[in-house]
Amino acid sequence: MRDRVERLTATLEERELDALIVGDLVRPGDSGRTDMVNLRWLTGFTGTSGLVVVKPEEALFVTDFRYADRVRTELDGLEVVTAERQIVPAVASRLEGRVGFDDAHTSVQVHGKLAGAVPSSVELVPAAGVVEDLRRRKDARELERIREAARVADDVYEEVVGRGLAGRREDEVAAAAAAAIRARGAEPSFPAIVAAGPNGALPHAEPSEREIGAGELVVFDLGAELNGYCSDCTRTFAAGEPGDEAREVYEVVLGAQDAALAATVAGAGARAVDAAARDPITEAGHGEEFGHGVGHGVGVEIHEAPRLGKTSDDELVAGDVVTIEPGIYVSGRFGVRIEDLVAVTPDGCENLSSLPKDLRDVG
Amino acid sequence: MRDRVERLTATLEERELDALIVGDLVRPGDSGRTDMVNLRWLTGFTGTSGLVVVKPEEALFVTDFRYADRVRTELDGLEVVTAERQIVPAVASRLEGRVGFDDAHTSVQVHGKLAGAVPSSVELVPAAGVVEDLRRRKDARELERIREAARVADDVYEEVVGRGLAGRREDEVAAAAAAAIRARGAEPSFPAIVAAGPNGALPHAEPSEREIGAGELVVFDLGAELNGYCSDCTRTFAAGEPGDEAREVYEVVLGAQDAALAATVAGAGARAVDAAARDPITEAGHGEEFGHGVGHGVGVEIHEAPRLGKTSDDELVAGDVVTIEPGIYVSGRFGVRIEDLVAVTPDGCENLSSLPKDLRDVG
Repeated sequence: MRDRVERLTATLEERELDALIVGDLVRPGDSGRTDMVNLRWLTGFTGTSGLVVVKPEEALFVTDFRYADRVRTELDGLEVVTAERQIVPAVASRLEGRVGFDDAHTSVQVHGKLAGAVPSSVELVPAAGVVEDLRRRKDARELERIREAARVADDVYEEVVGRGLAGRREDEVAAAAAAAIRARGAEPSFPAIVAAGPNGALPHAEPSEREIGAGELVVFDLGAELNGYCSDCTRTFAAGEPGDEAREVYEVVLGAQDAALAATVAGAGARAVDAAARDPITEAGHGEEFGHGVGHGVGVEIHEAPRLGKTSDDELVAGDVVTIEPGIYVSGRFGVRIEDLVAVTPDGCENLSSLPKDLRDVG
Repeated sequence: MRDRVERLTATLEERELDALIVGDLVRPGDSGRTDMVNLRWLTGFTGTSGLVVVKPEEALFVTDFRYADRVRTELDGLEVVTAERQIVPAVASRLEGRVGFDDAHTSVQVHGKLAGAVPSSVELVPAAGVVEDLRRRKDARELERIREAARVADDVYEEVVGRGLAGRREDEVAAAAAAAIRARGAEPSFPAIVAAGPNGALPHAEPSEREIGAGELVVFDLGAELNGYCSDCTRTFAAGEPGDEAREVYEVVLGAQDAALAATVAGAGARAVDAAARDPITEAGHGEEFGHGVGHGVGVEIHEAPRLGKTSDDELVAGDVVTIEPGIYVSGRFGVRIEDLVAVTPDGCENLSSLPKDLRDVG
């Protein structure tokens, strides 16, 4: 992990920062609800209470009593400071100059405490997204882990829909998917969505007790987390012959997805990739029924940078792993979403999802 | 859920607020990492993007496209406003006067956006903990759900340690616990801790591949989440005859826990309950080896208000459900923690954990 800290240190100068704080400052020390993803990615620390202060010449890890023993075995080459339960005062006294903090993950309350505790010479500078930006450029080892997580998802689909879908309950299918993921040594990267018929028009429906009807379309969205990295995939299956209208909408979504995949390359604007999918959907008269962005980054988090949508200013870089997932949601009737996970390269993208995309009648 | 909104509305006047915003304002709209617990408890909304604005005469629910259909079926009696992906601007224009916001769950970044978008007459007032405070007073239905979740935990212990612990790997035991919880229709309320011998001295150790040695103490901390409510319990078992020192430390912790349980009653200071456990541990010479607070609230979250520790200013109220969990962690050797879940009553407390607490040699 040492090289990641060094990559972060290298960004301090261009940002004119004397130090950068990374870690959870929403409710520090509250292990129930913290967001330690950046810290874990940066240092390998797997606890729930900690901060790292990165300076040009040193990196200081601040944690509380509960993790003191563990930190000494987990962290490599970082100076460790053990604080009482309150880590904010412990870190405040060690700051000087222009200090970047993650304003997207620092609560107003903690910011107030920090501002009250630092020496008067310290200027706290909003610096959200610095680690997230580094996280976008996946290295070969990270890509391999995501590939493996994507493979688990593919296998799980085959196993679960191989038994057919008509007559099964949505929640039973979702539970079968979770069990199949765990049987492969992974964990679900989010609760699977199994949304049949009209439920498919709710883009984030929870699996219900409803039985899947014959001929209904089933939006099935699942992902696996394996060795700390996530995958994300959606297929829309037919539980019997779906009828012409559903087939037509499906083809529109599939065409839109193909177009977006073709537009995915390092240097492309995220907005252009979104438009590549959105334009044909709008032309087919379904523009109002595609109410989300075309995709998002995936890595140690199931949703991370970049964001691919019509208001995104992000630009794709080589190493980005993103979803391409247009959908059409016909309220009260059915939904279609088709999602692949792809790795962005200088020449295009590598599709990490190997499942076929023709509309499959699995019965 | 309507009565909960009304209970919240009733607190506006004493706080001199014209409105209160409840919902996730750390990274709104980012379904990967949001903290929607207060909103879910208040309204029953199970999505990941939404806000409610509570005013004396109305309650306004603001969500984005993805949840518009769902909200109409889930929420009862709240006016629903559908926003574009960005819910902050949608909510800002509807505010006036003194508006409370949850400064513990609002990021500096979102606060800046909100402050820039509200009419100039609006004063944003930090108001963290308002919903958390209401959540402390569990009603009969909530208590019954927590009792059921505690029963699941009890049953799982019996099942998992019934096979003995010596010679099993920590992570295998933890996985068996997770499977046993799921087999009962629940989910783990947090990843179980199984920490044997020296690992037991790491208060939040992750289960390792290490085999549990004969005669080692095993700190085993698990909980179940069932119907939206959590349980939390810890027992320390002996995997064979543990020896005199471990037995002595165990008795100190058990005595400390008994004393804290006896001090647990509505009206008691959280600090006094902590002291009831801490004093005998300190007297026995282990004060430095008990580095966390004696307990915390449990409900829809595994960690919620109140906090029971030596710096807490909370006072127990009837309806609080809290853990009582003193521990002694002998670095490099072993740990002991004994944790019950109790409901605070006007006369004392009801212990929701029914497992025996004598030091059990399960082999």
